[in-house]
Amino acid sequence: MAITVVGSVAFDSIETPAGRRERCLGGAATYFALAASFFTQVRVIAVVGEDFGSAEQAAFDARGIDTDGIEHSSGKSFFWEGSYLDNLNEAKTRTTELNVFGAFEPKIPNTYRDSEFLFLANIDPVLQRRVREAMPNVKLVAGDTMNYWINDHKPALLQVLRGLDILLINDTETRTLGDSRNLVKAARAVLAMGPRMLVVKHGEYGATVFHGTGPNGEAAERTFRAPALPLEEVVDPTGAGDSFAGGFFGYLASEKELTPGVFRRAMFYGSVMGSFAVEQFGTERMQRLTRQEIDARFAQFRELTHLD
Amino acid sequence: MAITVVGSVAFDSIETPAGRRERCLGGAATYFALAASFFTQVRVIAVVGEDFGSAEQAAFDARGIDTDGIEHSSGKSFFWEGSYLDNLNEAKTRTTELNVFGAFEPKIPNTYRDSEFLFLANIDPVLQRRVREAMPNVKLVAGDTMNYWINDHKPALLQVLRGLDILLINDTETRTLGDSRNLVKAARAVLAMGPRMLVVKHGEYGATVFHGTGPNGEAAERTFRAPALPLEEVVDPTGAGDSFAGGFFGYLASEKELTPGVFRRAMFYGSVMGSFAVEQFGTERMQRLTRQEIDARFAQFRELTHLD
Repeated sequence: MAITVVGSVAFDSIETPAGRRERCLGGAATYFALAASFFTQVRVIAVVGEDFGSAEQAAFDARGIDTDGIEHSSGKSFFWEGSYLDNLNEAKTRTTELNVFGAFEPKIPNTYRDSEFLFLANIDPVLQRRVREAMPNVKLVAGDTMNYWINDHKPALLQVLRGLDILLINDTETRTLGDSRNLVKAARAVLAMGPRMLVVKHGEYGATVFHGTGPNGEAAERTFRAPALPLEEVVDPTGAGDSFAGGFFGYLASEKELTPGVFRRAMFYGSVMGSFAVEQFGTERMQRLTRQEIDARFAQFRELTHLD
Repeated sequence: MAITVVGSVAFDSIETPAGRRERCLGGAATYFALAASFFTQVRVIAVVGEDFGSAEQAAFDARGIDTDGIEHSSGKSFFWEGSYLDNLNEAKTRTTELNVFGAFEPKIPNTYRDSEFLFLANIDPVLQRRVREAMPNVKLVAGDTMNYWINDHKPALLQVLRGLDILLINDTETRTLGDSRNLVKAARAVLAMGPRMLVVKHGEYGATVFHGTGPNGEAAERTFRAPALPLEEVVDPTGAGDSFAGGFFGYLASEKELTPGVFRRAMFYGSVMGSFAVEQFGTERMQRLTRQEIDARFAQFRELTHLD
């Protein structure tokens, strides 16, 4: 089934201990779409500027991604510059230029309206909500956010959370949003805000899915933890979380029935896609990936964690 | 098969967000011995002062632990006072009084000499080495250390590492000892110092075992990651790592053959024992634990991580 994703398509200048790259194709919607495209049809809603050219378009086309919802606006695309020189787990932002993204008004092509899956990547919750409401018939809605929205735009974010099936955020965001240093307590507080499931991404330690409670207070499903691969070299962590989300949600959308087993495998596919994303700068690795490599790493993750 | 453990038996005064306890029975050898005693016969080499009374002795006796190697000396036992108020992952030490431990000269009872497993808990590497050399016939030797010895007593520590089969340390210690912020690179550097296996404990994120390379540079076994249970309440993290080591090594000693599958299950048992240790202050939970509870949590850990 098709996924519509709304989010940023951007250029990133990135510095890590492995080197520096200028103006890589980036943005949450880009990483998400590339990762999800290995599993299902993906449709993107975003805005880009005149600097988005044929090379960038080709990256989406090569993966069969529908870009009818990418609006081309006069001006420059969203630009981000950041460094991981001090800490590979946290980017230090040097520059953020919203450019055409500052006036982004998501427009949903009619051909997107039968999408059964919707992913609200990390953008202004007001825009997330608008897209959500414009697509009332989707079967499953997942989303991401970040500390900026949690801290400074909480009322708008809370409205988004009420309409979400699955929220995917990292440890710090969970602790901030759930207002507890204890991850389990924070997760429970976040689940009380609306999402039926919370996927907490732990970076190099994998990810944990927490489930909301049923009518009698019992957890709907057991907590599940997917590993991350201990990597000898992390070239560029940018986009790892969005690639996780793309693998996770893409796999869900590819399955007929959303059984507990399917959700578990989705967590593994999320970790797998995150582990590939960091192997090269920007989306380089995602662009050269094959489904065979994905399945081989899935098997490696199973071997890494399973007793027999 | 029997394990001999050498290390500290101490009193700890501990403050955590959950409260405060004065002079709990503690020390690395205590936690290790209690945890391992659920799997096999354990024999302790340590020194205590006159403050070690019948209540403390009873904690060992109740678990059938051999304390013939615990020397009673005039003076006070090792005392540690610490707080986890700021950070549950790292203790802030307020007081360390070595007391009788300052002049500790490990003495190995003759009845211990047929032990096939030896655990060198975190003490001065000079003492670790002395005990290791006095027990040349052991089948498997594991050990622990800490940043203090890594930073300030490295030559002595390196001699210990050459005689170890398995080193169990945490993330920070691995990065310090292996001199790399990348865990995989640090692990490889540590393995080059001697141990055949390195178990890196990640606290709430579980633990990973890395293996040394064979004659052709190939890893002897695949890397394996055991989960930790996401816990709603960590009452007192003291002794979690030593309890992990006790569960891990205790289970190994209880098995006839050390197959790769046995090592994987040992990692799970380590995580299980660590997860119990933090549920109450000091060794309280370890003292009231049953094998049935251990096996139930083992099953829970499998459920938490396995796809099917």
